[in-house]
Amino acid sequence: MSLFLIIDILGTIAFAVSGALTATRKKMDLFGIFIIAFVTAVGGGTLRDVLIDANVVWMRNLTFVYVIIISAIVAIIFREKLQYVKRSLFLFDTIGIALYTIVGIEKGIDANFPPLICIALGTMSACFGGVIRDILCNEIPIIFRKNIYATACILGGVAYFVLRKFGVGENLVVIISGSIVITMRLLAVTFNWSLPSIYKKEVE
Amino acid sequence: MSLFLIIDILGTIAFAVSGALTATRKKMDLFGIFIIAFVTAVGGGTLRDVLIDANVVWMRNLTFVYVIIISAIVAIIFREKLQYVKRSLFLFDTIGIALYTIVGIEKGIDANFPPLICIALGTMSACFGGVIRDILCNEIPIIFRKNIYATACILGGVAYFVLRKFGVGENLVVIISGSIVITMRLLAVTFNWSLPSIYKKEVE
Amino acid sequence: MSLFLIIDILGTIAFAVSGALTATRKKMDLFGIFIIAFVTAVGGGTLRDVLIDANVVWMRNLTFVYVIIISAIVAIIFREKLQYVKRSLFLFDTIGIALYTIVGIEKGIDANFPPLICIALGTMSACFGGVIRDILCNEIPIIFRKNIYATACILGGVAYFVLRKFGVGENLVVIISGSIVITMRLLAVTFNWSLPSIYKKEVE
Repeated sequence: MSLFLIIDILGTIAFAVSGALTATRKKMDLFGIFIIAFVTAVGGGTLRDVLIDANVVWMRNLTFVYVIIISAIVAIIFREKLQYVKRSLFLFDTIGIALYTIVGIEKGIDANFPPLICIALGTMSACFGGVIRDILCNEIPIIFRKNIYATACILGGVAYFVLRKFGVGENLVVIISGSIVITMRLLAVTFNWSLPSIYKKEVE
Repeated sequence: MSLFLIIDILGTIAFAVSGALTATRKKMDLFGIFIIAFVTAVGGGTLRDVLIDANVVWMRNLTFVYVIIISAIVAIIFREKLQYVKRSLFLFDTIGIALYTIVGIEKGIDANFPPLICIALGTMSACFGGVIRDILCNEIPIIFRKNIYATACILGGVAYFVLRKFGVGENLVVIISGSIVITMRLLAVTFNWSLPSIYKKEVE
Repeated sequence: MSLFLIIDILGTIAFAVSGALTATRKKMDLFGIFIIAFVTAVGGGTLRDVLIDANVVWMRNLTFVYVIIISAIVAIIFREKLQYVKRSLFLFDTIGIALYTIVGIEKGIDANFPPLICIALGTMSACFGGVIRDILCNEIPIIFRKNIYATACILGGVAYFVLRKFGVGENLVVIISGSIVITMRLLAVTFNWSLPSIYKKEVE
């Protein structure tokens, strides 16, 4: 489980940094930057916990609150130099998304929700922090326009339940479906994949 | 009750189609379109269930999830032809709003909330899916500017409790107050009614 | 406790009036104005109650609903004359923020949350009604840009727990930490204080 925690913290760092940078681009003050970092990192999980009526994780376990505060401070101080570690951040972010997806799915399974809803909860955990961030920044959520995250999460979620159905062991299910999320996202970014557009005709 | 379910499904279809069409106008991708369709259809009820601490309906009963997915797909494929069935959609939508209002009120009564709050819950069920849709699309909610829905729901809700107080049977209460919502909305759209404006003086 | 209730009602009036005035500036209709007044007054507390899984106060105690309705009506009728009582409104608002902060902190303590989370809950109670108001009005929340409220609430919250740790009696803790919120906010507005900007270099 300790590896899980490390990945979770790395993912939280990446999310918090990305949130803080978005907020600085919007010229927010220190309070705004911290709130946006916070919401980006834990917003998806919070929405999930409210919907399934579970305890909100960060309210009982302060580890993540501290990680987010420190990440936001570091992001503010080094915001001009962060481009040099952009690649590492992107990797953490991608691994974080995969982990958040799995965590959301397993929370759904524990509460006896049907697979389709579990996949939705996993995707929500991974992606809706960014949606709330964009709403607070007064923008149409990027994920609704150029979807690089969500499809990867959904595919990973489908794989999770298919593998589980075929009796694959739990650890292997987690590793394979997590890897699918990571691979899909890396491929999507590398080859600039997007969902098939329905607007082509109108553009011509 | 089966008639109720049919009306509920027709209302969900109308809401999901309207959400999907709004999302296509905002040039969202497939994921965005589906999320907006979903939120428009179930957002109001979800907010209601979170506020009264009830189970969120669509998370346990997948019927509506399937209806929304199919409606969104149909809306995407036939989006240019949907103008020919606009009138039917509007009718479903209106009936759906009436039904959602009643469902919200009755959920409030079951949880022992005072009548004023029950009417608010009914109006929320019917109208706040559209509010969340507009926020996600980065617009001021239409219902706060040109209110055709909400007043009809509130009047229907008031009628519900007045009739109930006078000892009218439950079925009749539902039919009459639902009809009031439908009639009010049809009249409002037909005659382009709006709430009395408080801005007239400033425009002159 | 009756003094507490009076302050709470005065704070609610100030919040509701400020919400209603914002909505009239956005040319909303009567329904929109009422909803924005409502959300500004109770949005922060509602978010807090949903997150800590407590009963939402205004749904069981209608006092505040009536206060908000009347405040919104008064604000609409006298909106051009309200500038003459601006100062009183600002004072109520400031006292209301202090009180909401204390209420939020004490709700957090009752539910055994750690101090850091209690301070966050206090700040949320006082400030997030305005955040939701700004989102519904399609603006970046003012508090994320020019933070006059939130820092005062956080400082008051820190004082609350420091005083408590040193064994100061509960009433005195409330009075001193509440006064800190009020004083900080009055000073901030008087001297136009803001958080240290991180953007200076970029502006030069």
